[in-house]
Amino acid sequence: MSLIVQKFGGSSVANAQRVKHVAGIIAEKYLEGNDVIVVLSAQGDTTDDLIAKAEEINDHASKREMDMLLSTGEQISVSLCAMALEAMGLPCVSLTAWQVGIQSTSVHSDARIKRIDSERIQSELDQHRIVIVTGFQGLDRNGDVTTLGRGGSDTSAVALAAAFHAELCQIYTDVDGVYTTDPRLVPNARKLDEITYDEMLELASQGAQVLHNRSVELAKKFHVNLEVLSSLEKKPGTTVKEVVKVEKTNIAGVAKDTSIARIALVGLQHNPGVAFQVFDLLSKSNINVDVILQSIGRQDSKDITFTVHKKDMAEAEKILNEHKEALKFDHLEDDDSIGKVSIVGAGLMSNSGVAAKMFEALYEAGINIQMINTSEIRVSVLLDENDVNKAVKAIHGKFFDEV
Amino acid sequence: MSLIVQKFGGSSVANAQRVKHVAGIIAEKYLEGNDVIVVLSAQGDTTDDLIAKAEEINDHASKREMDMLLSTGEQISVSLCAMALEAMGLPCVSLTAWQVGIQSTSVHSDARIKRIDSERIQSELDQHRIVIVTGFQGLDRNGDVTTLGRGGSDTSAVALAAAFHAELCQIYTDVDGVYTTDPRLVPNARKLDEITYDEMLELASQGAQVLHNRSVELAKKFHVNLEVLSSLEKKPGTTVKEVVKVEKTNIAGVAKDTSIARIALVGLQHNPGVAFQVFDLLSKSNINVDVILQSIGRQDSKDITFTVHKKDMAEAEKILNEHKEALKFDHLEDDDSIGKVSIVGAGLMSNSGVAAKMFEALYEAGINIQMINTSEIRVSVLLDENDVNKAVKAIHGKFFDEV
Repeated sequence: MSLIVQKFGGSSVANAQRVKHVAGIIAEKYLEGNDVIVVLSAQGDTTDDLIAKAEEINDHASKREMDMLLSTGEQISVSLCAMALEAMGLPCVSLTAWQVGIQSTSVHSDARIKRIDSERIQSELDQHRIVIVTGFQGLDRNGDVTTLGRGGSDTSAVALAAAFHAELCQIYTDVDGVYTTDPRLVPNARKLDEITYDEMLELASQGAQVLHNRSVELAKKFHVNLEVLSSLEKKPGTTVKEVVKVEKTNIAGVAKDTSIARIALVGLQHNPGVAFQVFDLLSKSNINVDVILQSIGRQDSKDITFTVHKKDMAEAEKILNEHKEALKFDHLEDDDSIGKVSIVGAGLMSNSGVAAKMFEALYEAGINIQMINTSEIRVSVLLDENDVNKAVKAIHGKFFDEV
Repeated sequence: MSLIVQKFGGSSVANAQRVKHVAGIIAEKYLEGNDVIVVLSAQGDTTDDLIAKAEEINDHASKREMDMLLSTGEQISVSLCAMALEAMGLPCVSLTAWQVGIQSTSVHSDARIKRIDSERIQSELDQHRIVIVTGFQGLDRNGDVTTLGRGGSDTSAVALAAAFHAELCQIYTDVDGVYTTDPRLVPNARKLDEITYDEMLELASQGAQVLHNRSVELAKKFHVNLEVLSSLEKKPGTTVKEVVKVEKTNIAGVAKDTSIARIALVGLQHNPGVAFQVFDLLSKSNINVDVILQSIGRQDSKDITFTVHKKDMAEAEKILNEHKEALKFDHLEDDDSIGKVSIVGAGLMSNSGVAAKMFEALYEAGINIQMINTSEIRVSVLLDENDVNKAVKAIHGKFFDEV
């Protein structure tokens, strides 16, 4: 008998019909003889509705009280799902994060799971019950409810799979797996059967929406086998694991991100530590910096160019301008009409032809590259925002249509 | 500095505007220098909406899962109320029953409070925070969420007032106090300034909707001063306490109950213990019996007549007929078109003229009395259902208009 963790997102449990459908998927795994732990998000629009309720009263409510409010959403989901399983005559129990003992840090609205107590869930599994747990939430050392931030329910599922040494952690969603690129943009995008943790991490970081970084990092750390699959159609999804079986002959996928903006500090003096000063200032304001490029500029000065999230651009410029004298730069340039396209593949950088093939595709499509950035398994290029979709199609075609 | 417990019902927190209004009432007591513990019910129709959601999925869901679902309603209320107080710049914290440690029995949907841990609330009060607690719910020994059944939030408030030795427990509702009878029926019904626990208990038992029996019993047991008052209008309500100050010159009120049915077992043999057998059978099926009358019938047999809730009549008759041979009765009669009218007042039965005055009012109104039942502080009469409102008006007029 194996233990399986199954996670269903908000759209998968959006209404009574969907909840019953999900109960059917759970029942199938249970009746095959597996122990099953289920993790659920809040139903469809519930979280948005609760946020609207709060904003009617106080649009600067404390995060502690927002967590108290929002955590009701998953509690509603798990109890309704338990009722659907009860209607099928199956033994089950719904549990909140505090009942399980999902211990988290105290950073309300963005807490991290620290530890999961095993006692309650193990006792329910021992009684052959299907255990249905609220995703997205934890309990801090003060006994207060926390929420885990973006992708929180995926993280809850992976953490439970790690804590209970599950054979498999299935992430059910409204797509049927991880694709070589966005199928809405490139109709002949291919679903991947398998992908490595590192590839999935890079794809997630580079704009693929299907799994959140944190859950993949956790899965990699604890060697949790992940499967991304559809709650709507019954067919195999994509498995994420340490090493994939097949010899890799290609990249895993092409990702895009148009939520970024570029800032350039022009004419910095050659003082040691100036880069540190720049990024330390931004970091202290919780502004994440992505691609960084440093180049020799005119007259023995240098330029530092980097990207931030579009929403952070104004704030980043404000901070840098406030420290213009200390940083000693000449002027600041910005561009919020850029985008990033990346290819991801294990061993990509040790295979010299791969990056060249990407640049060739862009050249053939007549697209200018503004900046290039690479990791061990990824090559990213910065482009004009208007070229992004064209670039994805050209690169995807180059790698997947000509194979 | 005093400690005040304030409880607000579902209609008092039904929407954002009402929640803000309630926050204003709380703030006033807090800013006078009091410690304040607030107890809230679920907003307006929330509980009904959640029940509808459950019934779409499973109309025989377990009570354990229903409690899990319904308890989200109060959690939403308390977090929203905390946000409203935060918007006023007041220190506050919302707490669920499990965070407080409101320990209850495990009877889901009808649990009883066993004990309240004081640590968490005391620590919050010590930090001068307003504490906002979910009513209607508890935590059982298994770590599962329970709900307290009808009148549960009133009970939570009184239990907290008892545990923390509050000076006063204010029950805010949509009426402004306890009336001598239903003001919708008798426009010149009077609001009582004070009433004793016993009178309130009898009025509540006899159909007055304003406070639930269990909360009054608890208040009497732990000497909690209760005040029933309006959350809509700022004016004094009705105080419920052990002894009221003024010399009583009248009854406290007139109550009616049209939810009852009468069953008569006719021609029972004079066996000892037959009454016990009858009521033991009903009790084992959780059927509550109210007024009981035993009379000598024809030919040395006897009749036993009693009332049950209308919804239990068919079930009670089924059980009795199944045991007809053992109980040895001739036949069974029933009547579900009856009603009960009661007068309640401390020392009523030791004041011989009071019952007579009630019967006189009914006689003058041409109303037949079917059965009479009395306690130390109450006289109830069973009437034709169609006579109930006329009887209430006649009796109320006799006692309150002729003073």
